Amino acid sequence: MPAEQLPPTEAPEVLTVELGDRSYPIVIGSGVLDELGQRLKQVLSPRGCAVVTNPTVAKIYLARTLRSLREAGFAPLTIEVPDGEEHKSLASLKLIYDRLATAKIERSSPLIALGGGVIGDLTGFAAATYLRGVPYVQVPTTLLAQVDSSVGGKTGVDLPAGKNLVGAFYQPRLVVADIGTILTLPRREVVAGLVEVIKYGVILDAELFLLLENEIERILDLDLSRLQELVRRCCAIKADVVRRDEREADFRSILNFGHTLGHAVETLTGYKRYLHGEAVAVGMAFAAKLSRVRNLCSVDTERRIVGLLQRTGLDVAVPAGLEVADIAAAVGGDKKVENGRVKFVCVEEIGRARFEMVTSQEIGRLAVQGSAEVE
Amino acid sequence: MPAEQLPPTEAPEVLTVELGDRSYPIVIGSGVLDELGQRLKQVLSPRGCAVVTNPTVAKIYLARTLRSLREAGFAPLTIEVPDGEEHKSLASLKLIYDRLATAKIERSSPLIALGGGVIGDLTGFAAATYLRGVPYVQVPTTLLAQVDSSVGGKTGVDLPAGKNLVGAFYQPRLVVADIGTILTLPRREVVAGLVEVIKYGVILDAELFLLLENEIERILDLDLSRLQELVRRCCAIKADVVRRDEREADFRSILNFGHTLGHAVETLTGYKRYLHGEAVAVGMAFAAKLSRVRNLCSVDTERRIVGLLQRTGLDVAVPAGLEVADIAAAVGGDKKVENGRVKFVCVEEIGRARFEMVTSQEIGRLAVQGSAEVE
Repeated sequence: MPAEQLPPTEAPEVLTVELGDRSYPIVIGSGVLDELGQRLKQVLSPRGCAVVTNPTVAKIYLARTLRSLREAGFAPLTIEVPDGEEHKSLASLKLIYDRLATAKIERSSPLIALGGGVIGDLTGFAAATYLRGVPYVQVPTTLLAQVDSSVGGKTGVDLPAGKNLVGAFYQPRLVVADIGTILTLPRREVVAGLVEVIKYGVILDAELFLLLENEIERILDLDLSRLQELVRRCCAIKADVVRRDEREADFRSILNFGHTLGHAVETLTGYKRYLHGEAVAVGMAFAAKLSRVRNLCSVDTERRIVGLLQRTGLDVAVPAGLEVADIAAAVGGDKKVENGRVKFVCVEEIGRARFEMVTSQEIGRLAVQGSAEVE
Repeated sequence: MPAEQLPPTEAPEVLTVELGDRSYPIVIGSGVLDELGQRLKQVLSPRGCAVVTNPTVAKIYLARTLRSLREAGFAPLTIEVPDGEEHKSLASLKLIYDRLATAKIERSSPLIALGGGVIGDLTGFAAATYLRGVPYVQVPTTLLAQVDSSVGGKTGVDLPAGKNLVGAFYQPRLVVADIGTILTLPRREVVAGLVEVIKYGVILDAELFLLLENEIERILDLDLSRLQELVRRCCAIKADVVRRDEREADFRSILNFGHTLGHAVETLTGYKRYLHGEAVAVGMAFAAKLSRVRNLCSVDTERRIVGLLQRTGLDVAVPAGLEVADIAAAVGGDKKVENGRVKFVCVEEIGRARFEMVTSQEIGRLAVQGSAEVE
């Protein structure tokens, strides 16, 4: 069946992130991985390139990726980094740099990230800094990476002291988001990705939130056309936010909804217990609570947010055993701290958010009160 | 004597590097280190900050630096990195990141580089990437850093495979170039710095070259008003080049005159035998020779360039014992390689340069022929 006869939601869609001379296309669709080489050829003439991935993703998608690149005339080198957030590190970066230098990768040769957020952030930062910048291409293979890190140009690595403490703003030249890769994800990762989708609904798109409330079961059953709609919608929202404030001078930090406590929870549990999205779910439920306690939103708004998160199967309770001082210290290590106060994202109603300056202590105190009371 | 009665060349001068919303001032003068705090206060309100330096520079200038910052209301932390090019590394970067994280340096807190090119490049890259970018201030304490790295925003570190292979373009918010610091430099470092001054003359400013030919002895005697004139003039030339091509898309690479073979010589001698400027002098004499061999410049132009370098006391001969293949390989690892050919900067006459595409092999072959023939 020719592509133009496919139902519209299953045909590949191309969204452009408008950033002047750094604008780039996001190709969204099922099976678009096989178009990577051809799509890349429209942006850069064929040449040497490097695919950065991890063993888990490589097993499923590397062969198709290399075939597509080679068929379009590119000569790819593969660099594998071990799987896991603990490898989003300076050590992995050094490994990538050394491989690029050994292979004499030139300034015009693209680095292609094939994987989830860890691979994307790490590869993007390597691309931003190797030879002071080589072209960067993203092939996000998780729902989270497709709806979140594929737009916005945030790249970086973690330090022992905290997540994403080192990085750069660096835009990709092309993003190819193959919705089909979501089918091979563990359910836990799909759910973690949905947290960011829910986030966009809470802070910026009441209609998206309603769609999620109505269709969460079909989405969890991995209905491809629904998933494609979610990815497209989230990318469009984020592209609009980033277009308005690329370097997070102000408005863009609205996207940190749920992330202040989320990051602290990840840090305090040693990045072992929670996937990023799971920790953000805890942070979102907490942000809703803080908003309600400060009379910024209604009890109903809080209930809807917590309710939707729970329907996806998430545990949104702040983990037991954390101390106020530990949470306050972890929150105080966040990049968004100004003069000791945190620029905290609160919700006013579904689809509308605002900033509040909150001390780390207040966050710590409210977090340890537990979230059971509203469930 | 009030400042306005000083001879004009000894009063501090302020030059602005025009880069739109990233424009910044360079303060040039004898004793301006003591104005650092006050000058910085005009750019950023007083807050925490970090001074990155090395033990050699710290011994002479750290106390004055910290006093000036404190008197203006800043609260400086000091980070010392061992002295030497071998410490312009990922390991030093990690040390700086960890200290910044431990001290909870915030996104608005400046990093101040107090030292030469190594400290500047390293600190600049740390500033470009810590928390995805914190303000960067340069206090160059060598002639080389004052005329070269204080303008242009190139920051970075070396890899085992080569110099400056990792980095970012990142502009400082303020540069304070105290000419007086040149008086405490070893003569060898002054001479190495003069190489870059001579380079500006060769490629872009025949009048500057003539001034150097006429006054090289007074300059080598460290006449402060002459030195200030040289620094101001070089900064102005480089600011103009950078304004026209900030990210080295094309024209800016004219500044790499002498650097292609210079970098190779540094690499092949393990960064031990030559100071950067000394290796560039070898590269400049070689570039003049290559230009003459290709009939791009006259024998007289080559003689003037080599002659001026030798009058400063420099040995411009390519070191004995290097093999064609080694030089070709080292040159081939350069960032300026395109499709295996090097964009080589040649001289046409004093004050005018042009690009030539040259293979690494040709460079290797011509280099091992020795430079004795024209001396």
